[in-house]
Amino acid sequence: MVESKYTPTTQAIISSLTKHDPAVSEALKNVLFNDNPSKVAKWHALFADPLFYPKQNMSLDEMRAIAYKRLKKVADAKLFSIYDFINDPKNLLTAHEMLSLCDGALATKFTVQFNLFGGTLIALHTDRHKEFMSKVDSLAHMGCFCFTELGYGNNAVEMETTAIYDEAKKEFVINSPTTLSQKYWITNGACHANYAIVFAQTLVKGKNEGVNSFIVPIRDEQMKPCTGVTIEDMGWKMGLNGIDNGKLKFSHVRVPRTAMLNKFNDVTESGEFKSDIKKNSQRFFKVADRLLSGRLCISAMCISGTKMNLLIAIRYSQQRLSVGASGLSDTPIMAYQLQQNALLPLLARTIVLNLGYNSAKDLFANPKGRENEVVRVCCAVKGLVSWNYEKVSTVCRERCGGGGYTAHARIHEGIQGSHSGMTAEGDNRVLMQKIVKDILSDLQKELHRQPQMTRCPERQLPKQESVGDLESLMNLVYYREVAEIKSITEVLQKKIMEESKKFYDVWMHEISDDIQSLALAFSERYALENALSIAAKVTDLKAKEVLAKAIRLHCLLLVRENLGWYLANGVISPKAGLALEGEYQQAVKDIVPHVNDIIEGFNIPKIPQLAPPIIRDYIKFNEQSDPDNVEAAGGFFDFTKGPKL
Amino acid sequence: MVESKYTPTTQAIISSLTKHDPAVSEALKNVLFNDNPSKVAKWHALFADPLFYPKQNMSLDEMRAIAYKRLKKVADAKLFSIYDFINDPKNLLTAHEMLSLCDGALATKFTVQFNLFGGTLIALHTDRHKEFMSKVDSLAHMGCFCFTELGYGNNAVEMETTAIYDEAKKEFVINSPTTLSQKYWITNGACHANYAIVFAQTLVKGKNEGVNSFIVPIRDEQMKPCTGVTIEDMGWKMGLNGIDNGKLKFSHVRVPRTAMLNKFNDVTESGEFKSDIKKNSQRFFKVADRLLSGRLCISAMCISGTKMNLLIAIRYSQQRLSVGASGLSDTPIMAYQLQQNALLPLLARTIVLNLGYNSAKDLFANPKGRENEVVRVCCAVKGLVSWNYEKVSTVCRERCGGGGYTAHARIHEGIQGSHSGMTAEGDNRVLMQKIVKDILSDLQKELHRQPQMTRCPERQLPKQESVGDLESLMNLVYYREVAEIKSITEVLQKKIMEESKKFYDVWMHEISDDIQSLALAFSERYALENALSIAAKVTDLKAKEVLAKAIRLHCLLLVRENLGWYLANGVISPKAGLALEGEYQQAVKDIVPHVNDIIEGFNIPKIPQLAPPIIRDYIKFNEQSDPDNVEAAGGFFDFTKGPKL
Repeated sequence: MVESKYTPTTQAIISSLTKHDPAVSEALKNVLFNDNPSKVAKWHALFADPLFYPKQNMSLDEMRAIAYKRLKKVADAKLFSIYDFINDPKNLLTAHEMLSLCDGALATKFTVQFNLFGGTLIALHTDRHKEFMSKVDSLAHMGCFCFTELGYGNNAVEMETTAIYDEAKKEFVINSPTTLSQKYWITNGACHANYAIVFAQTLVKGKNEGVNSFIVPIRDEQMKPCTGVTIEDMGWKMGLNGIDNGKLKFSHVRVPRTAMLNKFNDVTESGEFKSDIKKNSQRFFKVADRLLSGRLCISAMCISGTKMNLLIAIRYSQQRLSVGASGLSDTPIMAYQLQQNALLPLLARTIVLNLGYNSAKDLFANPKGRENEVVRVCCAVKGLVSWNYEKVSTVCRERCGGGGYTAHARIHEGIQGSHSGMTAEGDNRVLMQKIVKDILSDLQKELHRQPQMTRCPERQLPKQESVGDLESLMNLVYYREVAEIKSITEVLQKKIMEESKKFYDVWMHEISDDIQSLALAFSERYALENALSIAAKVTDLKAKEVLAKAIRLHCLLLVRENLGWYLANGVISPKAGLALEGEYQQAVKDIVPHVNDIIEGFNIPKIPQLAPPIIRDYIKFNEQSDPDNVEAAGGFFDFTKGPKL
Repeated sequence: MVESKYTPTTQAIISSLTKHDPAVSEALKNVLFNDNPSKVAKWHALFADPLFYPKQNMSLDEMRAIAYKRLKKVADAKLFSIYDFINDPKNLLTAHEMLSLCDGALATKFTVQFNLFGGTLIALHTDRHKEFMSKVDSLAHMGCFCFTELGYGNNAVEMETTAIYDEAKKEFVINSPTTLSQKYWITNGACHANYAIVFAQTLVKGKNEGVNSFIVPIRDEQMKPCTGVTIEDMGWKMGLNGIDNGKLKFSHVRVPRTAMLNKFNDVTESGEFKSDIKKNSQRFFKVADRLLSGRLCISAMCISGTKMNLLIAIRYSQQRLSVGASGLSDTPIMAYQLQQNALLPLLARTIVLNLGYNSAKDLFANPKGRENEVVRVCCAVKGLVSWNYEKVSTVCRERCGGGGYTAHARIHEGIQGSHSGMTAEGDNRVLMQKIVKDILSDLQKELHRQPQMTRCPERQLPKQESVGDLESLMNLVYYREVAEIKSITEVLQKKIMEESKKFYDVWMHEISDDIQSLALAFSERYALENALSIAAKVTDLKAKEVLAKAIRLHCLLLVRENLGWYLANGVISPKAGLALEGEYQQAVKDIVPHVNDIIEGFNIPKIPQLAPPIIRDYIKFNEQSDPDNVEAAGGFFDFTKGPKL
């Protein structure tokens, strides 16, 4: 028998890192992916096309050309149609999950074409737009979504672009009067779109009837900008440079009356504005509705990218060697507690957020009876998932050192993608404010569904010497929402009723952190509640156990992060607070033997088009010098065998 | 009188954001910059050269060419010489601070040429190398530092490259036998270096005498790789692509005996290895010494970039308008508590870390009597400053929304730069381990200087209803180090002495978070202690007050972040814990009227070469489409007048 160079402890950890139960992974695949499983193989097969091989050191033009080519290839595969909004709404989000594994720029161009452009058409069209819509799936009508203006990123209802109705000619005249009113960050705008849906203040007979949307041709058949349309390229960005973001200005551009998307509001042939919706602000929310599904599309992209980065960091850490007890570089860094404590709580949290997102996907497909929850759930999920994506990507990059700094490692794509997700389709922080406004409004109507606690932490838990059991932890997470709601309503009552302060002042200048805390408490509760409910239904007992361990670790993480709050408010005892640290450390170790079950449960295809060289044979890859030659990295690291020594 | 559209509260905040006392800024400039103030103007003048205008959408070749041209321009300005290591050591760090304002790739190429390459020569040369060294300042000898190998990122002492002494020919034969032994991430290697300092296991008469360094020509006069030297380009990275990182392999490359840098170790003419240092491991630390100053160089780059990003985010927020009480977009977002709570604690923390870094700069220039502290201080400062740079850049990007996502906004440079800083010259987390080993070793020798507490928090503070005064807060921050030292020594005692566990097992598998906590506690104490001591000497009373407010906010931030620990351990009372939140919120507000004093105190030149359009007239900039045309953004935003409406 060969004597191990490892200590028995290290040896045991290294062995546990090679464990894999494929049945558990199979069960997890079906839990983590919330749609028809048969779809996955089709997407994976599509990505096997050589077009999806990663390429670096490209000019803007080249990056955009390849993103478009990939989008066209995706469109041609017909794995998604805008009519799925009606027949198979979950397929929209599934498409985003899949595309994000491959290329964030491609996924973003897709989301604009199919959700913002195509989805708006589906939502706001009438019969007269059907022929136009039939050309969207194929990209014959390639679209952009002219909503945001330079000066109105967070206050779009005040946008300046106008659509003035010319009764004589039965045309709308679209005009952006100022620099601040130029349509800004318009994806597909700089290069590829020939049509835009333009949002504009609609003036009929001199009266502002609120924001409506209009189909406006922006490029002719030679792809030259149409008369009156100025298109400027926004140039280089911090990432996702395959996206052709443009600035668009409209100078008295005329479109026929019928260009207006008129499902809810219309101008009749005789020039009358008609709407069943009385208030302009209500009309705005109706026509800007795509931003809501847009938030879920971003969540889909982010959760998928998060799993990809965890896969990369963990697989790399399983084969990357550094100093062992022998002093030699013989120990996979994943065996270090340092690496485990950095990565595995994020892995656990990502599972919970994945399940929370899955519930939102269900809600999106079928909101019946829970319509009042849709807005806050979309905001909550986008917030948590995109912030988590940023954190995971940052930590994964750091824990992979130089190996994670190369472009071919792909980890940085998550940093760039998450930053886009965090502030696109509504700045996360502003969405958190929206959640609280929504909750407060529902509270007044007695509509806010509070979490079902099985115990009241404030009265019962302080007596416990440990709060590390799942039930206590769950109650603690839920309790935060309950307590924050109580606290914020009392504060508002006091400041506004008793001290006669203005709502705006209190909201914007005094309780900002309270608002963020409540919104986060709600969001975390939502994700946890749904993760628990999904996990409860899992029939594979081993997979159920893995999920339970992950959920518990996630809860420990949440309570640990807010420990000051729980202790200062006397919700748990100092003794239980002290005990928490050891329970947390052990909970991380408890995940180690399940790492492969979980990572394989992510079901990320093992093709060189998607998988970076650092999770394959990165030594072989480094025998040559072309970072685009990912084939050189050969096959995939066999985690059941452990690292090559 | 025109009625304000703002509420009186908002109006007061907007007014306070226009306050500026130039005398305070002047005083702060002298506190925050720890070198001869006359140097600054020379660097600022240099950057006014058109060569330093930002450029985007470049190929790798173009990015590298411009970084080299800039480096040459900097070298020609003769603001730094490698002989400053002897005569004016602080000038090395000053140069890094200045260069980082301009271009991270330039600064990195500079640090390799002047600190790693030039500094090693200064540290390890003898008379025979003087002529060679005279060509470094001008870049006639352009160098790279072949230290890290692909397989030995964190265990360099085990590097595989060998320098075998051939007695007959009086030559060393340099050889990298495997793929893992290729020199990796070698800055200046892919394009511009004609010489390398190569570190290698030195074999003389068949005996490994440990790692030494050798001057090796790697390119001939036509810049073709020399015989036996294989150079491969590492390609695209997550950022800093102007750096030409290469992989270098040496195949039996011969250099004369005199190529060895022989200050400490030598091979005599008669072929004997000589050294006053007995152990190979000690020899390693002696020859790898430049990594230590390298950590301060990285700190210099990071602290400077941090200030730049805070400047960008805050100035943009002062002029960027969003929704006000009127519903219109008329309120600068810096007036929102949301923006203040996100940015101002980071501003306060950056001041403290800046002062901590300044103390390390002094220690570097004159370590006399404190030699034992140098290693841990360099590690501590690099860790805190580079992590803070990452956090600040991430938050600034997020708080600037789309405005911060454009490349011309420059904020993303901080994300890319900080990631490089976090794991280069030693992974921060590994450096934290080094700090603790260092402290434990000094404790045994009774050499570790513990912080001077004025009160013992554990006994006295729990009685206080508030710990928000600076003295209590300082004691709390210091106490964490004292308590963590006590805790870790007890744990090690118990596990190793009583439970007979192996040190490696305990260190790597059981107490990872404890190690990190102690290292951070030490690092935070070091920064705070020095910030307090520097602030105490400031004579301008108003500047002193601003510093006091910033330091207090920073302390509140630290205690708030670790509130769970303080409460669970009974160091402060739940009542004081609850009170902390209000004190923290107020401390942020207290910084608002000093924002301009602080930002101007950063002394960042107002030239379009460095200042992104979003802090000038970004509306004017958006009237045109060329992101390279920064001139279009015109003059600088006048913060004393507030935003244009």
